[in-house]
Amino acid sequence: MRKMKKLTIVKIGGQVLDDAAALTEFVQLFSQIEGQKILVHGGGKLLSQMALQLGIEPQLIDGRRITDAASLRLATMVYAGFINKNLVAQLQTHQCDALGLSGADAHLIQTQKRAQVPIDFGYVGDLTASSINDKRIIQFLELGLCPVFSAISCDGQGQLLNTNADSIASGLAVALSKTYEVSLIYCFEKKGVLSDVSDDNTVIPILQLSDKEQWVAKGVIAQGMIPKLDNAWKALKSGVKTVIIKKSSDLLQLKSGTQIQL
Amino acid sequence: MRKMKKLTIVKIGGQVLDDAAALTEFVQLFSQIEGQKILVHGGGKLLSQMALQLGIEPQLIDGRRITDAASLRLATMVYAGFINKNLVAQLQTHQCDALGLSGADAHLIQTQKRAQVPIDFGYVGDLTASSINDKRIIQFLELGLCPVFSAISCDGQGQLLNTNADSIASGLAVALSKTYEVSLIYCFEKKGVLSDVSDDNTVIPILQLSDKEQWVAKGVIAQGMIPKLDNAWKALKSGVKTVIIKKSSDLLQLKSGTQIQL
Repeated sequence: MRKMKKLTIVKIGGQVLDDAAALTEFVQLFSQIEGQKILVHGGGKLLSQMALQLGIEPQLIDGRRITDAASLRLATMVYAGFINKNLVAQLQTHQCDALGLSGADAHLIQTQKRAQVPIDFGYVGDLTASSINDKRIIQFLELGLCPVFSAISCDGQGQLLNTNADSIASGLAVALSKTYEVSLIYCFEKKGVLSDVSDDNTVIPILQLSDKEQWVAKGVIAQGMIPKLDNAWKALKSGVKTVIIKKSSDLLQLKSGTQIQL
Repeated sequence: MRKMKKLTIVKIGGQVLDDAAALTEFVQLFSQIEGQKILVHGGGKLLSQMALQLGIEPQLIDGRRITDAASLRLATMVYAGFINKNLVAQLQTHQCDALGLSGADAHLIQTQKRAQVPIDFGYVGDLTASSINDKRIIQFLELGLCPVFSAISCDGQGQLLNTNADSIASGLAVALSKTYEVSLIYCFEKKGVLSDVSDDNTVIPILQLSDKEQWVAKGVIAQGMIPKLDNAWKALKSGVKTVIIKKSSDLLQLKSGTQIQL
């Protein structure tokens, strides 16, 4: 069998994006990852802060956030503009030749506007099996560039769409597994998946799909973590080599975080 | 002599960016330009509107705008985020494989923060002779991509800088003239350089450097047009093949606008 090149895909989100010191440390660590790599980032609190300042009321249905036109506009500004370009500028200072991207650029990630039934989530795009333009992304990687993705995608008909950053990270990991041996790392402010969410010393080192029901039943896996884990297992089933959830400051520590396994 | 490939660089600015119908028409026309091409865009009124909404007071010294930290943050959002990604999404619907970029991305445009004396303009970057990473831009062009630049650049030390879009367009034109036969087109809402600014039928068809003093003395060339023209003459002196100033809706009309000549 042909030996594949390694590719590391890191998703950074949560409070790290709002904490200048943690973000600076993360950028430094990420830049040290050897070989080809991709960064995917979420949003942080800046969007909500700006929405508040601009008087854009958050639209919620059944407690779930709706992306109306004003929110999409702001998300495009904050994610694809401010956060993306600042990450790129910082990465460049650490010999990481970052290229800031949205899914609209070079047709890289074409999503489908979510069906309006049962809930109309507004300008939200979901990935399909053919969303990722892996050929183009490989060209960028082969040029020695490090793609940095914001979670804004496009439907291919001129409409930008807000997209879940975890899904973009796993979608990229799956599509690029045809060409690379892919490690997918979800970074955030906690040390991993915790069996006691209030205690950072309760990291579950290995989380297997077969244990899922048990953990969910015990209430150990919190609501917000379930889609992240489902993304992870789906990625592993689709050829991604490893998936780890860990603290951003532990990025280069081999024995850290929660390893997701089938 | 080796025959060079053609490259068209278009700068779009002014009121066109604020006029949805004019912008849609422009995007359609731009997409029809044959061969390799680059788009550079300015800002439009959205930045001032948002600054007003957010209570960010415009800082002026001697009538000239200062880019403070809050303005830079907003400019990065509006230019590199909202306007850039919307242009890219629209171009993609016209078979133009657009790649939205800032100068920070892939070290494409490294500028120098303007000297703080006599006026501290804040986070403003000026181009130098070595600002443009032409090798990287050529790689993108050779991949069949159309780079779309917002006027946000970087000092290479992690600091984003607001930069004049006309200067970026002429800087790109000059640097890429080593490799391509470059046509530089400045598009805006007027039919060209007008000898009577209130009458669109008074386009000056050819504007030579030797005529400059005379036009300026007569008050024909308005204040805002002078740096644009100086950029144009500088570009021609540095190897750019043609420079034209024209109305965005006349983009594909051969006999239109003002041709700048040495």
